[in-house]
Amino acid sequence: MRNILVIGAGKSSSYLIDYLKNKAAEQQLHITIADVSVESAQKRADNHPNCSAISFDVFDAENRKKEIEKATIVVSMLPAAFHVEVAKDCLHLGKNLVTASYISDEMKAMEDEVKAKGLVFMNEIGVDPGIDHMSAMQVIDQIRNKGGKMLLFESFTGGLVAPESDDNLWNYKFTWNPRNVVLAGQGGAAKFIQEGTYKYIPYHRLFRRTEFLTINGNERFEAYANRDSLKYRKEYGLEDIKTMYRGTIRRVGFSRAWNIFIQLGMTDDSYTIENSENLSYRDFTNLFLAYSPNDSVELKLRSYLKIDQDDVMWDKLVELDLFNPNKKVSLKKATPAQILQKILMDSWTLQEEDKDMIVMHHKFGYELAGKKYQIESSMVTLGKNQTYTAMAKTVGLPVAIATLKILNGEINTSGVLLPTSKEIYEPVLEELKEYGIEFVEKEVPYLGYNPEHVNG
Amino acid sequence: MRNILVIGAGKSSSYLIDYLKNKAAEQQLHITIADVSVESAQKRADNHPNCSAISFDVFDAENRKKEIEKATIVVSMLPAAFHVEVAKDCLHLGKNLVTASYISDEMKAMEDEVKAKGLVFMNEIGVDPGIDHMSAMQVIDQIRNKGGKMLLFESFTGGLVAPESDDNLWNYKFTWNPRNVVLAGQGGAAKFIQEGTYKYIPYHRLFRRTEFLTINGNERFEAYANRDSLKYRKEYGLEDIKTMYRGTIRRVGFSRAWNIFIQLGMTDDSYTIENSENLSYRDFTNLFLAYSPNDSVELKLRSYLKIDQDDVMWDKLVELDLFNPNKKVSLKKATPAQILQKILMDSWTLQEEDKDMIVMHHKFGYELAGKKYQIESSMVTLGKNQTYTAMAKTVGLPVAIATLKILNGEINTSGVLLPTSKEIYEPVLEELKEYGIEFVEKEVPYLGYNPEHVNG
Repeated sequence: MRNILVIGAGKSSSYLIDYLKNKAAEQQLHITIADVSVESAQKRADNHPNCSAISFDVFDAENRKKEIEKATIVVSMLPAAFHVEVAKDCLHLGKNLVTASYISDEMKAMEDEVKAKGLVFMNEIGVDPGIDHMSAMQVIDQIRNKGGKMLLFESFTGGLVAPESDDNLWNYKFTWNPRNVVLAGQGGAAKFIQEGTYKYIPYHRLFRRTEFLTINGNERFEAYANRDSLKYRKEYGLEDIKTMYRGTIRRVGFSRAWNIFIQLGMTDDSYTIENSENLSYRDFTNLFLAYSPNDSVELKLRSYLKIDQDDVMWDKLVELDLFNPNKKVSLKKATPAQILQKILMDSWTLQEEDKDMIVMHHKFGYELAGKKYQIESSMVTLGKNQTYTAMAKTVGLPVAIATLKILNGEINTSGVLLPTSKEIYEPVLEELKEYGIEFVEKEVPYLGYNPEHVNG
Repeated sequence: MRNILVIGAGKSSSYLIDYLKNKAAEQQLHITIADVSVESAQKRADNHPNCSAISFDVFDAENRKKEIEKATIVVSMLPAAFHVEVAKDCLHLGKNLVTASYISDEMKAMEDEVKAKGLVFMNEIGVDPGIDHMSAMQVIDQIRNKGGKMLLFESFTGGLVAPESDDNLWNYKFTWNPRNVVLAGQGGAAKFIQEGTYKYIPYHRLFRRTEFLTINGNERFEAYANRDSLKYRKEYGLEDIKTMYRGTIRRVGFSRAWNIFIQLGMTDDSYTIENSENLSYRDFTNLFLAYSPNDSVELKLRSYLKIDQDDVMWDKLVELDLFNPNKKVSLKKATPAQILQKILMDSWTLQEEDKDMIVMHHKFGYELAGKKYQIESSMVTLGKNQTYTAMAKTVGLPVAIATLKILNGEINTSGVLLPTSKEIYEPVLEELKEYGIEFVEKEVPYLGYNPEHVNG
């Protein structure tokens, strides 16, 4: 029996654990499911003969070490900030590690020791980061292998609500951490390169500089730029590329309306509001508007942000109860962002039978024998319900597949890794197809970076 | 002979040192002028028999202590961040200290020891902070003394170019640290209270929420809100006030045009631009606009920010050479804010004979015996040239006057002080009148916070 320690039995662990359970008998696996809440762990274990559920506090060093000691391999599904303690123990105790999170500086700093001990610390092998790296590198390597030179790489991902559960004016619900959605784009200008020219978008214009995407021939989406599109130039071997852009996908019209919150200052998380607990939603909105006692909050907002009375943006704000004088904020010492999050959660929380959707879209432009080509590649995955979400599927399955392949020595390059090498992405992507996670690839005329598609 | 050590012989020391020189014989003063540049110190000393000029590096602890030891009182005109070293020595060596800077947390932390030693550490006694505190507290105390209850306090200050030297479309030149002007308003939402309602303005809307002011009956100005208008509620005894607002004065139209820089992202100081030294001013502007090779930078900017072709804002941008393809940025690893500062300094640097102007304006609303009253109080001071500026006069004279009064025991309350008590503001304001720094006060009908004056 090989013992897989899965730390974190939260939202994203359903498919991950089911995959391991299904392979348990054949592969001789025991799965220890560890969570702060033993009930959550037990729910995931569900009395499976090859599973045990334990209570696990990542800050209880003694117990943490004891459980990692017993494991053959460790999967950490904890929030990114907590991986480092687990990683240190894995290094010390000689255990391989898998996470779906971005490689932190602390994790990166362990690289030499991880290599010296011949260990595999596989990171960024969820959906984004994860499937994006793998599916992009597969196409990029194919282009290079036939002698092509990469000119353009654009990559877009979005966690959305599935069409059949899409029943609000924003065409959006929270399919992941709401706080991250409220704070998205903050912390510095978005940076990318288009046809050799660097471009910078400040946060307060980010949602007005969206690009349009058509996926699978007819579905239209929009995307706003990620903070640092240039981050993986080195890892992808694209140091000289002319155009590189990464974005987040939303339904058309979301960003223009979201911009209202930014313009008002409602997404600010840097200060607390006086007397926040006693404010109504309407009072909260009025905090960001001029004092003018003879005008309504509605008219002040419309006039301030120049919203026409027949603009659907207006209905989006009304739908959220932003002008409701009776609903109370009821949060003490809250920041504007915390209050906005609460208001949005009233409207955008998924119900048990609601289905989510993951959409990913890449564009690859390249030159081969003097001619220019373009490939577009898309993946759409739908969730089943609030346990078996598309998010849990696309995050959990690559983690699970990689874990088993590392355990079986099929992935054996040591180091602190991302899944950018063929040894990793080829078998993982192949197996993901069995679960319906598959990219549709098509050749299109080379467009280069297309200004027609820019909104604003 | 009493020895006054003046540390810092920069821009703001001309009037300060002249004042002390003029009193030197009668008051038995020796003035030691200390600066990193001994030439600057000598220039200010100008061979006056009661002056000596020395080279002084605030980080040379031994020399710093030696010079402070020799002084009867110390005046620090250093940048605010450097006062603390001087203050520690003053505390240790038992010397009184005067600065024109905001009280830092480190300075505040010395309060108990300063009191225990019976010392006077007088701070915030320049113009803003300084004359604003004194002139406001004089009126507030008068209102209270006759039994009035304060309802409203608004206070505005601006460093501007004098009308006769005002020859650009922005009606603005740099009369003080240009970097502070470029970064003004950053670091958090502006916060104030109007008729009992808290209001918050995010940075990217700050320059679109200006207020208009009419000063001396006919001159019209605008003002944008300072970061924290509520800062002095406690010091002024205005904890329960309904309206409190502090702002920075500009000529009408400045803020609307400045907003263009903010919208583009040109005032951002948080990241550096790739390859900044080789960019032209036009390239720099284009960094913040969409890629669209068939459109001009001009048209892209106009369309992006919806600037009509006959809007004077457009001419303001052209006047700054923002679209010039030949002028080079020539700054390595520069932030957008650093580049913008350079571009602005090309146009907004004062010439030797240019005159500056300080404008200050307060509004006081109060209730007395069931009736409401309002007082407005204004001060305008003009500079003579680039040595004898209005800024140097309004900063330096209160510092100099306070220094002599502390030296002569006329101000003798010990502690880390601001000039909010009558013992201090009364004689200082009285003496400032002799130099033409005087407030014009008038009763106006009580308006309260007047929404008519809000732009946007």
